[in-house]
Amino acid sequence: MAMMEKNLTGSTKEKQLVIDSDVHAYFDSIEELVPYCDESLQKRLNIGPFKKKAFNGKVVSSAEFRFPECRYINPLSVLRLDAFAPNGSIPGADPEFVAKDLLDRTNTQYAILNSANATMGAFHNVDVANGFNSAYNDWQYENWCEKDSRYKMSMLVSPLDPVAAVKEIERIGKKPGVVAVNLQTTSIPFGKRNLYPIYEIAQEYGLPMLVHPDSEQSGENSPSQAVGPASTYMEWHTCLGLMAQRNIASLVCEGVFERFPKLKFVFAEYGMGWLPGLMWRLDKNWKALRDEVPWLKNRPSEYIRSNVRLATQPIEEPFRPKDLLEVIQMAGAEDMLLYSSDYPHWDGDEADRVFSTLPKELKHKIFYENALNTYDFNR
Amino acid sequence: MAMMEKNLTGSTKEKQLVIDSDVHAYFDSIEELVPYCDESLQKRLNIGPFKKKAFNGKVVSSAEFRFPECRYINPLSVLRLDAFAPNGSIPGADPEFVAKDLLDRTNTQYAILNSANATMGAFHNVDVANGFNSAYNDWQYENWCEKDSRYKMSMLVSPLDPVAAVKEIERIGKKPGVVAVNLQTTSIPFGKRNLYPIYEIAQEYGLPMLVHPDSEQSGENSPSQAVGPASTYMEWHTCLGLMAQRNIASLVCEGVFERFPKLKFVFAEYGMGWLPGLMWRLDKNWKALRDEVPWLKNRPSEYIRSNVRLATQPIEEPFRPKDLLEVIQMAGAEDMLLYSSDYPHWDGDEADRVFSTLPKELKHKIFYENALNTYDFNR
Repeated sequence: MAMMEKNLTGSTKEKQLVIDSDVHAYFDSIEELVPYCDESLQKRLNIGPFKKKAFNGKVVSSAEFRFPECRYINPLSVLRLDAFAPNGSIPGADPEFVAKDLLDRTNTQYAILNSANATMGAFHNVDVANGFNSAYNDWQYENWCEKDSRYKMSMLVSPLDPVAAVKEIERIGKKPGVVAVNLQTTSIPFGKRNLYPIYEIAQEYGLPMLVHPDSEQSGENSPSQAVGPASTYMEWHTCLGLMAQRNIASLVCEGVFERFPKLKFVFAEYGMGWLPGLMWRLDKNWKALRDEVPWLKNRPSEYIRSNVRLATQPIEEPFRPKDLLEVIQMAGAEDMLLYSSDYPHWDGDEADRVFSTLPKELKHKIFYENALNTYDFNR
Repeated sequence: MAMMEKNLTGSTKEKQLVIDSDVHAYFDSIEELVPYCDESLQKRLNIGPFKKKAFNGKVVSSAEFRFPECRYINPLSVLRLDAFAPNGSIPGADPEFVAKDLLDRTNTQYAILNSANATMGAFHNVDVANGFNSAYNDWQYENWCEKDSRYKMSMLVSPLDPVAAVKEIERIGKKPGVVAVNLQTTSIPFGKRNLYPIYEIAQEYGLPMLVHPDSEQSGENSPSQAVGPASTYMEWHTCLGLMAQRNIASLVCEGVFERFPKLKFVFAEYGMGWLPGLMWRLDKNWKALRDEVPWLKNRPSEYIRSNVRLATQPIEEPFRPKDLLEVIQMAGAEDMLLYSSDYPHWDGDEADRVFSTLPKELKHKIFYENALNTYDFNR
């Protein structure tokens, strides 16, 4: 499966095939969305020819549209300063440059683009959210997926409007570049029945759910991270893992994977160090409390292993490097992990540097095979 | 340190010394609190001579006092059915029987009593909460700690009224039977400054904080477990660990252990499988984001190791039993774990059965030494 490559000193080495489960495409300006929005949506987003006039050079800010934004500000830039394109566009905004700087350099066969504006997916004005989602999906498809077939994408839908989400999946969910449904965390745990219409069509279309921050604590969406709000970005970012633990517990206990056995959930950027403990506690409780969840025919950990996938960035860095392998083995998670770079973000994992302590076969699974078994790239 | 014991077959074996960090004393009837309540509090709790008269044998239920109760109902009994006392009182309600059934049988030198009515600690009518806390503290002290000096207790205070909490600690915090302050989870993360007056006097008095469910999702207190509410007891109980992870991240990031270096926090019943992952992500984020938390002089994991303690019940049961030791070593948590039975609760860990896969020296730490280094039993 791996390509042979010659290097300058004449020796040969295998270059690892890579599928990258988390890359972010940016628009350089939101005005790029104008061609994909009707007049009403342009007015609501305050873009295009109807954009409000400035008074003395300033827009009255309370009248401007605002994306639901994360309340926690990274004191560093969230964008890699080495990823600006030569044409001056911001990191992640030039498909050609990203193809060179990321795909070519790291031997990436497919990169899955997850919207950096995903907080809009769960915006509570669902008409604006649905309009934005469709516009964004079309913009990304035309400007990225159609320009380089290595770009694949998760499509935005609103978990707050499952009927509209189903329609959007019907509209574009069979296009060859669309390989997942981007579902944001809200204050509705993912196991709740509200969301089943989305799961039903996603399973039918062979699309896994993709879950990625930042709707946590963003704008009016703001699902809680347990207990109460964090004070710093460091505290908030560390606690992102709680959202995945909570949602996985909900998915398993509610029997979603019994009802939709082919549906997969990919959690990106939530970590995996908590996985063994979550599995153990779920299995232990299930032994005593299974009367509550009679629909579960297998141990909870088995549903997690078969239906949940974890994108790896930011990968855990144990005190003893060998413990990364130990944790994977403890959980039996060899088939669950999907490499992701999070390009062009600040804390990205580079394909040629992560997983150096793992055996070769396991690396190949994480870098390539597990993604092939999760996404359908031959649509 | 260990006692020698002869058994019936004539061989000798060492019997492990035990300190049990989580035992629950119950009153058989709330009327037992009457002598410790003034007239006003009796009326508010609807106990004593002022108790409302029944109409046709029924109290009008909307007028009765109700404890903030957990919304998730265990389909099994939460009390061990083998722990009813011969006198017919409910499990955990007879100090003499518990002394025989738990302390004598398991060679327990000290048992720390944590109120089974701790949800009242964070009741939002803080006057009732403060009154109840004092009455409960006095009832437990007289009926348990003064009857058998092996009984020690965490004292209830309200985290919602730090001024009153400080006064209650001043009132009884130096009594020889009081060895910890029982602080309930609320929607205020433990690192927030509201709580520092409690931490200041607790550190001065040498009292660790003891945190134990059930205020999570109980009554009007109801701090969230991340995302949104669970559907089943199994799901809720599994996700209790999120409360500890969230609060530990808050305590560390806010610098509580830099400000109160001698203060210890004991988390009981929240598990420990998540500990390595939490430490790794905190340390990794700290490397990049330490500008946000300039007060942290050490790595986050070092504060956790020095100031956080985890009571072990319900102990994790890994797929491969050897992994319990692996997880402890991954986190460097050898000095952090305190054995607890959770007697007389449904999912208790028995001292003669848990930790069978751990080396003897580590077992001695967990069963005994770590508690000696956490609580001051020579007050």
